[in-house]
Amino acid sequence: MIINDMLKHTSEWLKGTGPNSDIVISSRIRLARNLDKVSFPHWANKGQSQETLEKIEAAVGKVDYLKKSSIFRLADLDNIDKQFLIERHLMSYEHAQKANSKAVIIDEEEIVSIMINEEDHIRLQVMQSGLCVFQAWDIVNKIDDCLAKELSFAFLTDWGYLTACPTNTGTGMRGSVMLHLPALVMTRQVNRVLAAIAKLSFTTRGLYGEGTQATGNFFQVSNQVSLGHSEEGIIESINGLIKQIIEQENQAREALSSKNKAMLEDRFSRSFALLKSAHIISSQETIELLSMVRLGCDLGMIKNIDRSSINELFIITQPAHLQKIENKKLSAEERDVKRAELIRNKLIK
Amino acid sequence: MIINDMLKHTSEWLKGTGPNSDIVISSRIRLARNLDKVSFPHWANKGQSQETLEKIEAAVGKVDYLKKSSIFRLADLDNIDKQFLIERHLMSYEHAQKANSKAVIIDEEEIVSIMINEEDHIRLQVMQSGLCVFQAWDIVNKIDDCLAKELSFAFLTDWGYLTACPTNTGTGMRGSVMLHLPALVMTRQVNRVLAAIAKLSFTTRGLYGEGTQATGNFFQVSNQVSLGHSEEGIIESINGLIKQIIEQENQAREALSSKNKAMLEDRFSRSFALLKSAHIISSQETIELLSMVRLGCDLGMIKNIDRSSINELFIITQPAHLQKIENKKLSAEERDVKRAELIRNKLIK
Repeated sequence: MIINDMLKHTSEWLKGTGPNSDIVISSRIRLARNLDKVSFPHWANKGQSQETLEKIEAAVGKVDYLKKSSIFRLADLDNIDKQFLIERHLMSYEHAQKANSKAVIIDEEEIVSIMINEEDHIRLQVMQSGLCVFQAWDIVNKIDDCLAKELSFAFLTDWGYLTACPTNTGTGMRGSVMLHLPALVMTRQVNRVLAAIAKLSFTTRGLYGEGTQATGNFFQVSNQVSLGHSEEGIIESINGLIKQIIEQENQAREALSSKNKAMLEDRFSRSFALLKSAHIISSQETIELLSMVRLGCDLGMIKNIDRSSINELFIITQPAHLQKIENKKLSAEERDVKRAELIRNKLIK
Repeated sequence: MIINDMLKHTSEWLKGTGPNSDIVISSRIRLARNLDKVSFPHWANKGQSQETLEKIEAAVGKVDYLKKSSIFRLADLDNIDKQFLIERHLMSYEHAQKANSKAVIIDEEEIVSIMINEEDHIRLQVMQSGLCVFQAWDIVNKIDDCLAKELSFAFLTDWGYLTACPTNTGTGMRGSVMLHLPALVMTRQVNRVLAAIAKLSFTTRGLYGEGTQATGNFFQVSNQVSLGHSEEGIIESINGLIKQIIEQENQAREALSSKNKAMLEDRFSRSFALLKSAHIISSQETIELLSMVRLGCDLGMIKNIDRSSINELFIITQPAHLQKIENKKLSAEERDVKRAELIRNKLIK
């Protein structure tokens, strides 16, 4: 697989399928693993890093589940390629910063991605559409078992898996669920919900992870603690919490639908019309309008568009995706024009 | 003619025809006249006012040009009727305030309107589409001549016609031209133009006359001085000034079209789409969006809609028009919904 092939299909996590996919965009489980008796990436010298990279690549090659995966060495990727993988949530922003002895391994369906020499030697993630934390954990767990047969991981009986940052030590696991909560935002209840999440030792972030603002009513909820609980226990608690948030968003959607139908109709209809008519549009406005269209679609008030088409637009309108599609570098102004053109072409059939 | 009949046709001044009708909405000439040796309306007692009303009504009945006109006594009109006539620019807001012995006479084509017992005994106005100040003056002049045969006007050789407010004394004439200047607004040149107009002893007002804000890029330019110049001289100078403003607006339109085509396309397309999709919309937003659509139409960038349909929407979306069309009293919220519905029905064919 080459990177451009990815343009031809929708990432697994954006398919808009799976349980509760009206509110839950995707579920993601990631594990941090480090090789035993090898310096963490930030402290390793060039030779050590290169050795780690090759060792892990070789190990991954032996994992049955990853037979149809591709290895991308960061040194071989240009800036647009890297940004493209970040936009698809297959790689972190940090991983893209220095290319030395780094790689990312991605399976054909874009369910699994493995970053080598990010903050830890291995960052293994599995992403699925809808609320699928248990299924994602099953896959992660199987791949981890396979890798453990090939590699010796840094592990202490009292502490669990050792990691570069102590917040990951223990299970090395983080579960994240991406939620679309427009009704909680519109009814001004979201801050109360976020405060409750924080009290339960979960964190909330925006569409593009740590440090990003919640935009387009998307919120990514993750566990903060990875030490002192079993993996299954952590996943159970994420799943339970998400189900409660889903319940609250559903209640807010029902309240809006029954009490503010005209206002909703107006917002949905205007948002859809703006997407179909704009000739210049920013990423930010695109995400906000698509968020409204998605809600309109979920509530059955916007017809003639399915959720997967909306999800696809969220991703292909991002800067690197646009440049990949156009196959050239574009300035911010050029992107705003091309983005509008792309959206119009997709929506006006 | 009853008031509801007016709903069936477009006012003459909104037809979007006549010279320079891309920039000039309408030309209006009005004369102030008072009966000799009769107190001005604000000082007259009930009996005098009633006598004046009947005397003028009788005189108007003898004017050939006004054979197909209707007399509406203000006492017979409800609030929506009065607001309806104000929205059609057939009557002033002040005239609607106290109904005592007041009337408005309107010809079938809504070219001529005569207010009786407004600030002056007679306020005669003629409105036409496009830049037609000379033609409008011709009609006004003829009607004035006819009225002068029937009535004795307060007139002093040294001063000219006497009026309640000294600013109207002399010719008693005011010429006003309603301009649509979106390109001068968008290129931030309009304040410079307005300042120049003010220096030349002309005033600029908004869509609904004195004290109203310029909205939707509409500006009404009128002469300030009516004393010491002949009627023809004043009209010449208005016509000359308006031609200069038209020239400047045209230059601004050309500059925008050549340098900011994408931005214009975006604005036009979005404005048109919002009008076609909104389910709740205020008067203010309607006027602003229609202004953009009108410019788009003028520049040939919006097709499938003609100027007269846009002009019609400016007027039928006003509060009293909406209530007349719906044939019932509507709250502001109900109007915003009905307005959106009306616009969608007109634009989506």
